[in-house]
Amino acid sequence: MNFSSRLLEEAVTEFARLPGVGQKTALRLVLHLLNQPAAEVESLGNCLIKLKHDVRFCGQCGNISDSALCGVCANHLRDSATICLVEDARDVMAVESTNQYKGTYHVLGGLISPMDGIGPSELNISSLIDRVSKGNIHEVILALSATMEGDTTMFYIHKKLKDFPVKISIIARGIAFGGEIEYADEITLARSIATRTPYDSTFIH
Amino acid sequence: MNFSSRLLEEAVTEFARLPGVGQKTALRLVLHLLNQPAAEVESLGNCLIKLKHDVRFCGQCGNISDSALCGVCANHLRDSATICLVEDARDVMAVESTNQYKGTYHVLGGLISPMDGIGPSELNISSLIDRVSKGNIHEVILALSATMEGDTTMFYIHKKLKDFPVKISIIARGIAFGGEIEYADEITLARSIATRTPYDSTFIH
Repeated sequence: MNFSSRLLEEAVTEFARLPGVGQKTALRLVLHLLNQPAAEVESLGNCLIKLKHDVRFCGQCGNISDSALCGVCANHLRDSATICLVEDARDVMAVESTNQYKGTYHVLGGLISPMDGIGPSELNISSLIDRVSKGNIHEVILALSATMEGDTTMFYIHKKLKDFPVKISIIARGIAFGGEIEYADEITLARSIATRTPYDSTFIH
Repeated sequence: MNFSSRLLEEAVTEFARLPGVGQKTALRLVLHLLNQPAAEVESLGNCLIKLKHDVRFCGQCGNISDSALCGVCANHLRDSATICLVEDARDVMAVESTNQYKGTYHVLGGLISPMDGIGPSELNISSLIDRVSKGNIHEVILALSATMEGDTTMFYIHKKLKDFPVKISIIARGIAFGGEIEYADEITLARSIATRTPYDSTFIH
């Protein structure tokens, strides 16, 4: 692209580094910001710098937090004997938004992916083993994505935890609520038949 | 969304203000930035602040520039008697990337759009009339989008310029190169038949 200004080019290059943002989108965003009041642009810039500088991670579960312990871990009404293992902060938000889960979390910070150079040591796995080895944990719920990386990571963590006196469970896989049988893929449908559960009319919404 | 951190929420809210960026995309971008080195995030933040603070607009054509005159207006090899009227800096880049146009530009900074509260006084129209009234301009090429706003703006500018001794032209509309007749819309096809030009075999690539 032929930029008329070096400053403009720099800003576009910076934006285009973001995932899913190409040069054209970056240019559109930068030109939009140029039309905004200076205070708004500075607020975005300073907000990013402050976020990176001041953000903390919960000392227990590894979730993004403003203090040493996150809101969930610090909440005594939550069941601290249950850990829901998730990939990142987005998954914590997804589970929290169900308003059904009352236990705590453990945020891995990624999934094992040799292709991307991410091995077990890059993830918050040792801190999970620490938590479990201290003894007060009854159940670890594996809530990772049903992808190859998720499966690999769950397999690895199961191997690490299986000798501790802790129940290890995995979230149910099957046909989604509202999902139509004819559009379900074969693997999901086969698995959901194989792992069928007793009919419970109170569970149907 | 249930954010675990106020800083995270602030950053997501700031990002979600950008056009075409929703809360989910904003969260994805912010979590990506959190995984980047601090220097890279600061560089993006500072770059935005610097852009808004230091960017200048060409005193002649209104394009984004690092100095008082942009590269095109300051270039004596360009034909300063021809002005290509465009909506914004992106359109200048699009025309420049053709490597065919040797004249100068005038950047309106938008299109007349009463729905969005943009009238002629919000655009760089008076500076265009100034340039034309000084007398050294032979041609103004209207290169605005073929939308209702673009047509309205061209109609307005034509009315303002028609009494000056200047040729006013509009970029050709018709079937794009590589375009298939059967997929062209009716208006474009009808117009491109009505405004047919003598066949010139040297122009077919």
